[in-house]
This record gives sequence, structure tokens and C-alpha cells, in this order.
Amino acid sequence: MRELLEAVADGSLSPAQAEAELNGYVTGEAGRFDAARDQRRGIPEAILAEGKSAEQVIALAEAALETTDRALLTRVSTSQFEALERHLTEAYPDATIDRRSTTIHVRTDDHEPPSLDATVGIATGGTVDGPIADEAAAVCLDAGATVDRVDDVGVAALSRTLDQLERFREADVLIVAAGREGALPTVVAGLVDTPVIGVPVSSGYGYGGDGEAALAGLLQSCTVLSVVNIDAGFVAGAQAVLIARAIDDARD
Amino acid sequence: MRELLEAVADGSLSPAQAEAELNGYVTGEAGRFDAARDQRRGIPEAILAEGKSAEQVIALAEAALETTDRALLTRVSTSQFEALERHLTEAYPDATIDRRSTTIHVRTDDHEPPSLDATVGIATGGTVDGPIADEAAAVCLDAGATVDRVDDVGVAALSRTLDQLERFREADVLIVAAGREGALPTVVAGLVDTPVIGVPVSSGYGYGGDGEAALAGLLQSCTVLSVVNIDAGFVAGAQAVLIARAIDDARD
Amino acid sequence: MRELLEAVADGSLSPAQAEAELNGYVTGEAGRFDAARDQRRGIPEAILAEGKSAEQVIALAEAALETTDRALLTRVSTSQFEALERHLTEAYPDATIDRRSTTIHVRTDDHEPPSLDATVGIATGGTVDGPIADEAAAVCLDAGATVDRVDDVGVAALSRTLDQLERFREADVLIVAAGREGALPTVVAGLVDTPVIGVPVSSGYGYGGDGEAALAGLLQSCTVLSVVNIDAGFVAGAQAVLIARAIDDARD
Amino acid sequence: MRELLEAVADGSLSPAQAEAELNGYVTGEAGRFDAARDQRRGIPEAILAEGKSAEQVIALAEAALETTDRALLTRVSTSQFEALERHLTEAYPDATIDRRSTTIHVRTDDHEPPSLDATVGIATGGTVDGPIADEAAAVCLDAGATVDRVDDVGVAALSRTLDQLERFREADVLIVAAGREGALPTVVAGLVDTPVIGVPVSSGYGYGGDGEAALAGLLQSCTVLSVVNIDAGFVAGAQAVLIARAIDDARD
Amino acid sequence: MRELLEAVADGSLSPAQAEAELNGYVTGEAGRFDAARDQRRGIPEAILAEGKSAEQVIALAEAALETTDRALLTRVSTSQFEALERHLTEAYPDATIDRRSTTIHVRTDDHEPPSLDATVGIATGGTVDGPIADEAAAVCLDAGATVDRVDDVGVAALSRTLDQLERFREADVLIVAAGREGALPTVVAGLVDTPVIGVPVSSGYGYGGDGEAALAGLLQSCTVLSVVNIDAGFVAGAQAVLIARAIDDARD
Amino acid sequence: MRELLEAVADGSLSPAQAEAELNGYVTGEAGRFDAARDQRRGIPEAILAEGKSAEQVIALAEAALETTDRALLTRVSTSQFEALERHLTEAYPDATIDRRSTTIHVRTDDHEPPSLDATVGIATGGTVDGPIADEAAAVCLDAGATVDRVDDVGVAALSRTLDQLERFREADVLIVAAGREGALPTVVAGLVDTPVIGVPVSSGYGYGGDGEAALAGLLQSCTVLSVVNIDAGFVAGAQAVLIARAIDDARD
Amino acid sequence: MRELLEAVADGSLSPAQAEAELNGYVTGEAGRFDAARDQRRGIPEAILAEGKSAEQVIALAEAALETTDRALLTRVSTSQFEALERHLTEAYPDATIDRRSTTIHVRTDDHEPPSLDATVGIATGGTVDGPIADEAAAVCLDAGATVDRVDDVGVAALSRTLDQLERFREADVLIVAAGREGALPTVVAGLVDTPVIGVPVSSGYGYGGDGEAALAGLLQSCTVLSVVNIDAGFVAGAQAVLIARAIDDARD
Amino acid sequence: MRELLEAVADGSLSPAQAEAELNGYVTGEAGRFDAARDQRRGIPEAILAEGKSAEQVIALAEAALETTDRALLTRVSTSQFEALERHLTEAYPDATIDRRSTTIHVRTDDHEPPSLDATVGIATGGTVDGPIADEAAAVCLDAGATVDRVDDVGVAALSRTLDQLERFREADVLIVAAGREGALPTVVAGLVDTPVIGVPVSSGYGYGGDGEAALAGLLQSCTVLSVVNIDAGFVAGAQAVLIARAIDDARD
Repeated sequence: MRELLEAVADGSLSPAQAEAELNGYVTGEAGRFDAARDQRRGIPEAILAEGKSAEQVIALAEAALETTDRALLTRVSTSQFEALERHLTEAYPDATIDRRSTTIHVRTDDHEPPSLDATVGIATGGTVDGPIADEAAAVCLDAGATVDRVDDVGVAALSRTLDQLERFREADVLIVAAGREGALPTVVAGLVDTPVIGVPVSSGYGYGGDGEAALAGLLQSCTVLSVVNIDAGFVAGAQAVLIARAIDDARD
Repeated sequence: MRELLEAVADGSLSPAQAEAELNGYVTGEAGRFDAARDQRRGIPEAILAEGKSAEQVIALAEAALETTDRALLTRVSTSQFEALERHLTEAYPDATIDRRSTTIHVRTDDHEPPSLDATVGIATGGTVDGPIADEAAAVCLDAGATVDRVDDVGVAALSRTLDQLERFREADVLIVAAGREGALPTVVAGLVDTPVIGVPVSSGYGYGGDGEAALAGLLQSCTVLSVVNIDAGFVAGAQAVLIARAIDDARD
Repeated sequence: MRELLEAVADGSLSPAQAEAELNGYVTGEAGRFDAARDQRRGIPEAILAEGKSAEQVIALAEAALETTDRALLTRVSTSQFEALERHLTEAYPDATIDRRSTTIHVRTDDHEPPSLDATVGIATGGTVDGPIADEAAAVCLDAGATVDRVDDVGVAALSRTLDQLERFREADVLIVAAGREGALPTVVAGLVDTPVIGVPVSSGYGYGGDGEAALAGLLQSCTVLSVVNIDAGFVAGAQAVLIARAIDDARD
Repeated sequence: MRELLEAVADGSLSPAQAEAELNGYVTGEAGRFDAARDQRRGIPEAILAEGKSAEQVIALAEAALETTDRALLTRVSTSQFEALERHLTEAYPDATIDRRSTTIHVRTDDHEPPSLDATVGIATGGTVDGPIADEAAAVCLDAGATVDRVDDVGVAALSRTLDQLERFREADVLIVAAGREGALPTVVAGLVDTPVIGVPVSSGYGYGGDGEAALAGLLQSCTVLSVVNIDAGFVAGAQAVLIARAIDDARD
Repeated sequence: MRELLEAVADGSLSPAQAEAELNGYVTGEAGRFDAARDQRRGIPEAILAEGKSAEQVIALAEAALETTDRALLTRVSTSQFEALERHLTEAYPDATIDRRSTTIHVRTDDHEPPSLDATVGIATGGTVDGPIADEAAAVCLDAGATVDRVDDVGVAALSRTLDQLERFREADVLIVAAGREGALPTVVAGLVDTPVIGVPVSSGYGYGGDGEAALAGLLQSCTVLSVVNIDAGFVAGAQAVLIARAIDDARD
Repeated sequence: MRELLEAVADGSLSPAQAEAELNGYVTGEAGRFDAARDQRRGIPEAILAEGKSAEQVIALAEAALETTDRALLTRVSTSQFEALERHLTEAYPDATIDRRSTTIHVRTDDHEPPSLDATVGIATGGTVDGPIADEAAAVCLDAGATVDRVDDVGVAALSRTLDQLERFREADVLIVAAGREGALPTVVAGLVDTPVIGVPVSSGYGYGGDGEAALAGLLQSCTVLSVVNIDAGFVAGAQAVLIARAIDDARD
Repeated sequence: MRELLEAVADGSLSPAQAEAELNGYVTGEAGRFDAARDQRRGIPEAILAEGKSAEQVIALAEAALETTDRALLTRVSTSQFEALERHLTEAYPDATIDRRSTTIHVRTDDHEPPSLDATVGIATGGTVDGPIADEAAAVCLDAGATVDRVDDVGVAALSRTLDQLERFREADVLIVAAGREGALPTVVAGLVDTPVIGVPVSSGYGYGGDGEAALAGLLQSCTVLSVVNIDAGFVAGAQAVLIARAIDDARD
Repeated sequence: MRELLEAVADGSLSPAQAEAELNGYVTGEAGRFDAARDQRRGIPEAILAEGKSAEQVIALAEAALETTDRALLTRVSTSQFEALERHLTEAYPDATIDRRSTTIHVRTDDHEPPSLDATVGIATGGTVDGPIADEAAAVCLDAGATVDRVDDVGVAALSRTLDQLERFREADVLIVAAGREGALPTVVAGLVDTPVIGVPVSSGYGYGGDGEAALAGLLQSCTVLSVVNIDAGFVAGAQAVLIARAIDDARD
């Protein structure tokens, strides 16, 4: 404790870092950031930008960078991204910003990327499933896992699916994202002995649109799947990381 | 008109037959039976037994037999069936009674079975889809079509499905019944150039159970399907008959 | 194989065409285009523009034009259309662009329109059903079928409906689109012996609005109908093509 | 007040009648019976038997008989009916008991049936709509209105419907009950200038079953209808009585 | 027939008027206008502007004016209204345009307003119910009925409601519009012997918002009500007109 | 600790009592009984009998009696009650068993009933709401509160409601249970300054039946209410106890 | 009465104040303002700005200020706020305007803030719950209660929750707002003996989004909670005021 | 192939075993049994008894025993179990039958239980979650995994939950089953770094009952969970097995 306070006093530790060290979370303008989640859960707290102001997003991103050297943001709108980028360019000129669809990953120079000896396969049914898969991929890459991405292999043209069977079988854990009728995760899970996490995607229109048919189909699947909510790419990715890390730990 | 009345007078035509001839329907205790539907629509009116008393079922079956020489009944409970069978054994000792699951087809000796030069393929995903497929088959057989039935080929074990691909391709029109996540019709329809009618089946439990996931999945399918309501085997069969008859007509 | 590669080498075949020939699909920036669907299923893959960027729409349209000499796009917004038109005017100056409501059909000079000896009747209940019927009509016309379009014959003024009865009866297959309470397909299907495909349309407000009442009504219909999802004009048209082609084949 | 109490004292008025006279309702074991509703609203309080014990049903029926000389009970099960009948045979040997489907109407000798110079037309689509129409008819007959009942004229065989058009047009107010897709009220209301009250009936299975499609269809109807809840035959009948009485009043 | 054609020839009748005379409807660019509805049903066809282009709205308004000398439009947006007003100012300089909330009533000089000896009471629970009540009022006024409007008497302050009881009792038919929990129509209907038509209004948020709680509450009401769809002010007004006219007819 | 164990050793404390003292809960065959809830929360853990076997119900009741000297059971079926009664008659011959509808309250001779200086008013709309109000009353009485019960005052006959206004105003906290459209809690809460807890009851049929309309109406109420789930009489009663005890504490 | 009119005549009372005094409500352009609610219910009528025009909002705010010396507005958009502020700056230059998220509290110099000897604890799960808690806080502060606000203590990091346990226990009544899965109110209510009012918040996406999962979870909670509708911060605050005032009254 | 046929010929292999060897599935009276699933997926096909006749259940169990030496049946009713037990006692006198709640595991003497070096933790919130946890446990035990079962630790008494934290942390993968509001999986997953699979259980009544609130809450959880359908204990167990086996493989 004494050491901690001395580190704050001499500036080698920011007050936020000290608070995170002591409490496990940082209290700021935009809420408490759960800095200890990474350590407690093995996955960082992602900042869901949707429904927050640009100021809140920036404040939470800073809390993340200050305490864990990187920030993972999901569902970031273009205007939120631009405000964040402007801020980071000034406040963290050395930071690296990765943007893929609506997912943003920022890391400072101090960040030491972890390494995980396991492969997460991520498959999508069609073009519109891409951003959700990007979200899942970001958290896997943050954790140091290898990501094997296979896009646009929906079962309407079954040969597209079957052509990738070997890659599906070689992954340690599979994330399969699909909208509309959501048949892809069922077909894939019927052919492999890998744990498959299904992600329903909010495509489609009319009855069962917005991912409802896909969600219902995944929950009713005749094969063995576990499921996350519609468009919950981050959750699927994080669950895959927990599984991949358990495998990685066992490999050691 | 005169002739008709004379036929009634001399007993060669029953009052019901005369009414059917004149009005197209017969008015009885249990409601009006649409005797002309067969002629107008090319498919008989089926008697939905569910929600009717045994007396009403028997009265409607008699109206059907008297005016069209056969009766097609769906969703017949065991007790309704037994009451009907008792009645028919006495009233129509020469009638032939076919019972398959909850579907009953009765025909008198006077019935001349039609013939239709077309094949309706009927596939099911699993054991529980059987009774629905039986309902569809009954109306196809009534119309004289050839029925090619392929059971228990759900996609959880994809090879079961693919092994039957040639049979699916050879049918003139396909009915595919599936419950749970309902992926089978989508996978089949993606592989053939035959019109496919999907029938969601009320299996499964939890969210999307009772056929809701299957219905939603069929309506959202990335391939081309038309759909009937959950468990509506009769409607699927009748629609297949209309298509098969159009093909049969064209063949002549 | 050799021939194929030589054709690519000498420029008489584009790489996309060669890939389509070999794999049945083309892999591009915006996803895989299922070029073989036309051959396998008898209907082209339509490009659903909704939810895609203008760039993705253009890339998929090009993949379609390159491999099948025409492209069918549905749910195209005005801005997507303008971007596509600009691109095509430059890239395919000889292409013909048909736009009807939100459906676009493009064909190059090389496209040889097929011919189909069968008539698809398309009826609508009211003004707002028009764009959905346009979508259905486009795929029927693409396949070479004759389209007989009858608009605005909803049952609120029943004589409008009955006045068109003969045209309904003469079609080989009927598509009937209706919103609100969706009674038109039921009334029409009760009067003809043609297969009828019902399309619920997302009109109406309050309970059962957005096409839900129409969908429920079509699925519950006392007559024989098969149904597609709300606003799924393309699916209805494609299913009608499969039926029409089966009839056409039988006519030969 | 004095008179009332003296009448109770000399037995010419029961305590229940006196309470009803003073408060407008009677408080008993099974709840308060709203004896004044008839006078205030022009329609009697119906006793909904469903969810009540036979004892509660009997107690409420007695309260009704004692204060208004008749009782109207709906959704009465067979066992409730038998208990009620046993009780009434002893307690009110002169009472007349009318039972139609699940609706019971009891009146004592003292009951003076009112007369209403107006006709309520009641139409049904099919056999299963009968009990609901019976409920509606009972309250109309209780009020002294003429009831013109037309059964089993669903639109699947449109000529059945159109054959009855003149009767529909001659009623002062129409109740149209229909299940499944519920198209009958829409078709009828499009052809007459009579106020039409639509009653959705809980028939049908699968999506939109149990009367949901019918309710949604009636609420979305392109014609002018007002609607009551699924199976709410009593409410439709009572609303028809209120309209019929307004017409009757105007006729005087 | 000859006369009609001669009238067209000499210009005293427009082709649209002649078509309406012969067919009962007019076929134009924007669909068929049911000109005969007024005569057949006793209420004009209202033009639902929502979901139509300004051009379609103008074309339908013209068809209405040409054949029935007035037009009733509902759910008209500001931009649709401005386009319509611009057009009418030029094309029908003598027309009178009434705009109340989103409802527009236009009549030409030739229009002879009818008169109806009956009063329609229209009550609302709160400020947001106003536009729906305006829609109902417009069709009543078009029919010549007297409208007695009572606003903002929701039951949260019950004395507001009870203060207006006499006015409610004096109407021949009552329309009561209410959103949120929709208790007002139930309370009013419990106190009068007038037929009450309940209109649920799409106010409120959270569970049961958008008028769903109000619709459910009206359909479940312990009193006697008939109901129209959420926000269906026009339908309620038209049903009230049909009742009012029946009363008016009886008064003669 | 030592004392506790010695008390177990000498039999003055049962092992269950000792476990409850130490852990706050008792672990038995049928699960852990939260004996400390009464102390921690101020309300006992109620045993929900629904979905449990008679054996499980008895085991949990015993755990409750042993550790808190009384047991409160809800949703007890007749057969569960009979099994429980048989058991208690033998095992706890001195226990007092109160049964009201489906709620059972058992207390041993050792139980010292608490006293609470506060009144909970409990009102119901109709006969069917009684068992739910009984459940609420049982927990209030267990806590020693005064219960003022007012039954059958639904707003369909508004004078029944208003006649009880003074009693509603005199309660410290009010529970109002109502099914169907659930207007009673809204009307009452608009007239008093007491906190009102609304309980929707699962009566009614058709759309919004089973308490859904009532729940939605209470949540949308224009007045101030807090709400518990459909039929959750126990929760309403327990919340009223917490409020009443806070008032009682303040009174001291 | 005479005095009142003289006060209006000599200008010491505005007509609105006089109307409020006599009727309990004020009738203006934008509806009736329930000025007596404060007196009758102990809580002011809040003006829900959503769905009203800026003019209506201003008119209702004026009615409130004129009759009760302050106004409480909820769900005020930025443009509504700006119009209101402009108006108040001119019309009530001495008024104090408090704005917190979308809730506005205005009071004139004449307003005498009440005082309430009770504490309302208000807790939130995360950043997005803030505006709802602000709404609840505003009505508590208006009533003079002490508010103890604890933000951002969702159970995903359980130590954040448990760290605040003492503050939760010290409040007289607790409001707990939470979106997503809404576990916070359940966990808190399991640990305190204070009455807890749960407020589900419309955060989250996919199935159960927009507060539905939270609402369902609060209604199903294994602990004792009463609940208000999704985002109904005002109702929660007002219910807390009613409870706090009952406690305050008892304390006197 | 030759060998296989010779083995059938000499009786060392049954026809079913040969078919399973060749096709991967066995075709019998009651459908095709997917004998190869175990090998392909690493988990056996479970026989869902619900909705099947006792004969079908027995036939499928036999197919399983014959080809994989054991059978796993779920949702077995008492009468189905008794029929199965009678059959097995005769047909497989050496078989071992384990029955836990509605899950049955049968193995012949030939069955060699596998061993898996991994622990699956299975926790439940309350008594009613037991049978679902039993289903999950059965498939884990079948696969040879160690099962650590922790019952009745719902968060209403949070100390019950926290007391087991160490056991939760020591498992390789966790299954957490909970009904009602389903808060337990969220609280547990927030405290461990193990992959957690949430199983919503169909307990509770009213809104969100039958497991809907729990499902919604798990899908919306602020922590990281993957989810299976309501009551889908088998699926959760099988997914846990796939994860456990991946860990076991990595450990080797």
C-alpha cells in the first residue's frame, strides 16, 4: 500500500492505475471501468459504444488504456470513431488503432501482446455476417489466439460449405455466424468434433427477421451447439478465448 | 333441373347428391360440406376432425361419401376413429378404410381412383415428422399421384441427406417436413431444381419450440421454398397435387 | 482444365468465369457469388442490396454479369441504384438496365433470354403491394415466362376481384400479394384450380401490422395456399418459375 | 327507504332484492352481483363460469335470479351445468333452463321478456364457430331482439357466402364469427351498409392459431368493422343489443 | 349506357365518372379508387396516405373528387399535404380544404353535405389521443352527424371523467380513444347505455407501449365494448357513422 | 461455536438448527432452505409447492418449522396439501394449519407471532382474484400486520369501487389485485396518496388473457403504481410487509 | 367562491389558479393539467414531453407553474428544452431551471420546497442507466427527500456491488435501475430488508433487448421486489416518495 | 467390405452393426439411428423420448445398444421407462440401467467406459433445476468426465453462492442451470475464468415464466456466457464434453 502511494506520489503510477490496483475498478466521469476483469476473467471488459456519448466512449477508452494498456470497443459509430481517433492522436500519439467494421482495438506501446497456442475458427454464412465476425475476431486476436477466418460459406450452395470442412475440423474451437434461417452452424456442427459456438446475425426481413429465426434455429439445433445472443460477436469471441486458453493451459 | 328432381323422386339420387349438384354444397346437422370443391379446386374438402364431436365427424364423413364417394379426414383422435369405424362398418359395409397416423381415407366401392402421371417426393427429418408426412401423402394418393417417401434424413447426419439426393431430384415436386431448427428443407432446396414445399413440424421444446423455429427458418430460407403452416401436412399435399396435376395436364 | 486455363491465358475467359466454371462460385471482395445456382437450381442468385454498401452491391453485380451475363438485384435503394447505374454506364456501356420499384435487372448484350411456355399470373390487393409484385415479376420475366399482372383487386370491393376471375383461371401458376388482413389470396384460391402462392405484404399498422396479420391469415387459410415470407416477392417469383418450368418441360 | 325495509320485514322483498335496490349490487359468498347493470347498461351481467367453482356459479346464478328474474351464464362446463341444473330443479322448480353449447339462460316465471323491434344477423364461417355464435344469440334473445342465424358460410366456397347476401343486408346489425384466417367478416362487411361486429374464433393450429390470425385479420380489415376479443360471443351480442335498442328507441 | 357514352362524348361526364358509374371503381395510375363504396357501404373510401408517394396521393384524391365531389385522406405527412395543397390550388381552385392533425378533408363546390340526425360523442384520455380523435371526427362530419368532442378526461384524475358523464349519456354512439393502460373506455362504458367503440392509441413506452396495453385492455374489458385497431380513428368514425345512420333511418 | 455444538450434543438444538445458525441455510434432501432470510430480509422464505413433489414439499416445510417455527407454502395442490397434513398431524401434532385457497400457513406452538402497527389494505376486482389476495394476506398476517380486505369492487360497476374509498385511504399501504383489463389499480391509485402495489391476475381469455392485459395495463398506468408479476400474491404481500415494517419502525 | 372571484377580479389570482382551485384541473390549449394531483396524491403530475409539440410542452409547463409554482418534465428532447428555456427566460425570468439528462425541473421564486425526513437510495448497474435514475431522483428531490445515489455497480464485477452494501442498507427505500439481464436488483434485494423498487432499463440488443430481459427478470426475481415499467424512472421515484412520506409521517 | 459381409454371414456381426459400419446409421422401424455420431462428433446421439411411442423408444434404444453398446435417453416418462425396463430385462438381462429424474443411461456388459481427464462443474439455483442438471450430468459421465455437482445455490441468498466459489474455479468447464430470473450464471461467470455454459430452466410463472426470463437474461448477460435452449440439459452436457475432451487431448 505504501509502495503504491509512493508510486503515485512520484508519478510512476497514475491515480487511476492505483485505484485499479486497489479496487479492481476505476471510477470516472463515465462510470466505473472494470480494470480487473482481464485478470479475474481472462478477458478484458469491452466498451460497448452504442448508447453512449462520444465523451463517455473516450473517457472509458482512456480508463482502459491507462490501466490495461489497450482498449477494445464494439459497436462504434463513425462519428464516435472520429472523435475517439482525434482524441487518441493527441493524447496517445504512439497508440496503434485497429478498426474493422464497427470494432476498434487500441493499444499503447507498453502493451505486451499475449500469445495463446490455440486456433479459433470463425466462419460466416454471407457478406452481412462480416462485422459480427470481425467483433469476435478482435477479442481472439487481443488474447493472442490464432484466428482462421472462412467467409461466405452459407448452405444455400452446400459445396461452398463442404469445401472448407478440413479447416473447420482443424480449429480448436469454432465460431459460426449466420443470419436468415441460420442453418450453417447446424450443418457444420454435425460434421466436426470441435466445440461450436453459434452466433445468430440480425439479417433477414419479415417473420423471423432481425436474427430471430437464426437464434431460434440455433437453440433448436439437432446437433450440439452453444449459442450467444443475436449479433453478440464479442461474447462469442470471449467465450472462445476462455476455451482456447483452457486448451492452451493444458498444452503447457 | 327436372331430370335431377325425377332422379331424386325415383331414388337414383339422394337428396344430398341433388343438393350438391345444384348448390355445390350439402347442408347437414354438422354444417355445409363443400362437395363441389373437388371439381372446382381439383382437391377434395378434407374434414378436420380436431375440435369436432364424433357425431359431427361422422355426419361430415357421410356427406362426403354420399356426394364424392370417399372421405379424407385429418387429425382424427383414437376415439373419433373408433366411433367412425363402428358407424361405417354398419352404414357402408363395403367401404375401404385406410388409417395412417391421424389421417383417415375412406372410399366406397363406387369410387374410381384417378390417376396422375407425376411423382410427389415426401421427405422427413426425423421420426416425429412422420404423421405430418402421412397427412400429405394421403391427399397425394387420393389424387392418384405417385408418392416417393424418404424418411429420417435430417441434416445432423448430413450423409443421410446426401445419400438420397438422386431421389429428391427425380420427383416432380417435393414436400420436405422438418421440426426443430428446420434446416432440412433449406439444404434440400439448395441442391435440386424441383419446386420444394416446406412443412414445419411442431417438435422441439423451449424457445422456438412447437415448430416456431422451423416455420421462421423456412420463411427466412436463403434458398427458394414455399411454405405451409406448422403441421399443415394436408395443405402441403394438396398444393403438391395442384402442381402435379398441372404437370400431368401438360404431359398429355 | 487445360482448355480453361488457356482460355484465361488468351483472355477469352476472365478469371472469374474460370473460377465459376471450376467451383460454381466466384470469390470477390464482397463475398462469394453463387454463379452455378442458375444451372443447379434453374433460377439465378438474386443480390439482396439491403444491408450492403454500394461498393458491395456493385462488386456482386459485376460478378453476376461476368459469369451469367445478367444480374438481378432486389431492395435497391435510390442511392445504391444511382451508384450502380454510374458504374455500369462506364463499365458495361452496352448493358440494358430495367428498374421497377426497388428491383433492378441488368443484362449484357451477350445475354440470350430464355423462353418458357407458361404463364404466371400476379395479382395484388392494393397500391402498396406493387413493389413486391414487381420483384416477383422480374424473376419470372428473367426466366422467360409470360407474366399476367392484375393490380388492385382487394376484396373490400369484391366485384373488382370477381371481374378478373377468368384471368386468374387461365394462368398456369398464380402469385397473389396482399397486405392488411390478406383476404385476397384466400378468396382467389377458393375459386381456381391453379396452384396459388400467397405473398403477405408489410402494409397496415397497429396489431398485426407490417404484414403479420397477412402472414398469419395466409398460413391459416381455409383454402389451399403455399406461402412465402412477408414482402418476399423474389422467392414467390422464383418458386413460380420452378413450377412453370416443370410445366414447360412437360409440355415439350 | 321505509317502504323497502317494511317490504323486507313482511317478506315481499328478499334481503338481496333490497340490497340490490339500494346499492345496485348484491354481496354474497361468491362475490358482488351487479344487479343494477341491466338498468344502468341495458344488458344483464353475464356470469362467466370458467374459473369458478360450481358453488360459486350457483350462488351467483341465484343472486341474478333473485334480483333480475333470470340469469345468463357463459362458458359453463358440463359438470358445472349438471350441478346448476340439480340445484335449480329443487330451488326454482318453475324456472326455464335453456342450454345451447356452453351458454345457459335461466328465467323464472316472474320474468317478463322484453321485446325489441330490431333484427340481429349472426353469421358463422364454419361448424366450430357455432358455440360462440350461440353465446351471442343468447344475449340478443334475452333482450327481445329477433335473431337471424346463418351458419357455415366461410369464403373458401364463396358461393355459400354470396347466396346469403340478402339476409345480411336485411339485418339491423350483423355479428360475423370466424376462425382460421377470418376472411368472412371482411368479405361480408364489404358488401353491406349494416354495422358489422367481427368475432374472431379460436380455431386453427400452428402460427396464428387459437384465433390470433382471425383477430389480427379483423383488426387489419380493409373494410369497416368493429371487433371483440377472441371467442367473446357475449360481448358481441351485448354490443349488438345496445345498437339494436338505440334503433328500436329511434323507431318508436 | 348510350346516354352515358354520349355524356362522355359531349364532355358533361368525364371518363372517370363514366367508369365509376359503370364499374363502381376508377382505374388510374395509382390504383383503382372504389367510387361506389360510398353508395354500397354508406361511407366513402378513405385514402390512407402513409406508404404512398405524393403523386399517388394526388392521383387518388383526384379520382375521389371527380367521382364523389370530395376526398377524405388520413395519415397525411406535412410534405404530402403541401404537395396536395399546391396541386389542388391549381386544379380545384374552388375546393375547400380542411386539415386537422394528419387528416385532410377536401370538397368541391358541387359537394352537397348530407345531414344525419344523430350525435357521435368522441372522448379522449389525453393530449396525444387528439389526432386519432380528429380522424374519427372527420368521417362523422363528412357523413353529416353531429360530433360532441370531449378531450383529456383520463381516469388518473377521475373527477375529470365523471364531470362529463351527462354528455356521454346523451350521445347516440360513443367513440372513446385512450392510450397507455386504456382504462377510460372501460370506465365510461360501465356508466352509460350507449354503444361504445374503443380506440386504443399508440402512446406509452416500455412493455405494452405503442398501444398494445390499451388494445389488450379494451379487448379484455369487463364491460361491453367493441374495438378497432390501434390508432384506427377512421374505422371507429366510420363504424359510428353506420350506427348513427341506422338510428337516423329509424328516426324518420 | 463451542456452545452451539454442545447444544447439538445435548439435544437442545437439532443439527438443522445448528446449521441454520452457522450458515444461514439448511441443506436437506429437497434443497437448501434459507432459514436466515427472515432475519436478513424481514420476511420468511415461502415454499413454492408448484413443480415440486409432495416429498420435497414436506421436507422443505419441516426445515422451515425446525428453524423458524412456522412455514408458509404457496400454490399448494389438493394432493400436496393432503400429504402435508397427514405428515404434520403425526410429526407436529401441536401445529396449527391455516389453509386459504392454495396458500398454507403452519406454525408450531413455539411460534411467537410478531406484531406490526400498520394496516395493509387488500382489494380485488372480482371473485377469481380471491386466491391471489389470500396469498398476499397470508404473508402480511404472518408478519403481524393488520389486513383490511375489500373484495369484488371492479370498475365495471364504479359505485362498488367508490363506496370503499375511505377504507382505501386509511390503509398504510395498498395491494390491489385485478385480472382482465386490470383497470381497478389505476382508478384506486388515482384517488389515494397511499403507496399502491398492483397485482395482475391470470383471468381472461383471448388476446391479453392469462393476466397479460392486466400486467401491461398496470405497467402503463397513468397513475403511480409499482407492480409484481401475474398472480404473484406472495411477492406483493412481502413487499407490503417491508413497507409496513418501515412505517412501524418509524412509528416507534 | 365569492372570495375566489374577487381575487380573480382584483388580479391577485389568475383565472387558471381559480379554475384549479375550483375544479382541481386547468383546461388549456394543450389539454387539462391536473393541478390537484399534488394535493390528492402527494406527487405532482409530471409532463411527459415525448410525443408532444414544443408548444404543448410550454403550455403545460406554464399551467403547472401557475398553479403549483413548479413544473417537472420528463423525456424532454434537446429542441424541446431549448424552446422551453427561451420561453421561460422571458416569461419567468426568476425561475430556476434544473436539467439532468432528459428530465427538467423548474421552480418559481414562490415555490417553497418541502422537506421529507427519509432517504431514497438510487443505484444503477451501468452508465446507460443514468438518465433513468436522474428521472427518479428529480421527483424525490422535488418532494424534499434525501437522495443517496450509487452508480455503476452492476454484478458483472460483484465487488463493486458488495462494496456499497452498507449504503443500500441505510436507505429507507431503494430504487435499483438495471438493463441487460437486470440481475442487480435481485442481488441487492436479497441482501437488505429495505423495500426495493426495480426499474428495468432499455439497454441491450438482440433477444430480450430494449429492457425486455430486465423486465422479465425483475418480475421473475426469486427475491422480493416491486417493479415499474421499462425506463419508468418517474414512476419509481414517485412510488418511493409515497413510501418515504408514509415513513416521514410515522416519524412525526 | 467382403470381411464385413462374411462377419454378418457367420453371425459375428449383426446386420444392424454392418449397416452402421457401412453407412454410419441404422435404418429401423422407428427411424434411422445415427450410430456414427459418437465417432464423428465425440458424443452419442441421445434418444429424445418425448413425443415418441414406447415402441419407438424401445426400437431406438435397441439400435443404440446394438451399435454402440449403450443408450442415452432423455425426457423419458414413467410409462415409457417401465416399458423400456420390461423390455431390457428380457432382451438385455446383463444391461445396467441408470435412471436419474427423466434421464436414462443403459449400457451392456460390452461397453467400455471411456475416461476423460477433466472436470465438469454443474451448479443449480434451486430444487426444480435438478432434473435438467441430471440430464447434463448423464452425458458427461457417459463420456468419462469427472462431474462436480453443486446444488441449490441461487443468488437470493448470495452467501450460498459465494461459499462454493472455490469449487466453481476448479472446474475445467462449468454448466450453470437456473430458472426464474436466471441471475446465477451471470454472477458465477463474473467471478471465474472458466468457460460457463448457461442453461435456462422452465420454472417460474407469469410474464417471463417457463424459462423465458432466464433465457433472455442469459443471452443479455453482462458477463461472458454461452447458452443452450430452455431445459436443454443434454446439449449443455454434450458441449461441455466437447470442451472437456479438447482439454483432455491437450493434456496428453
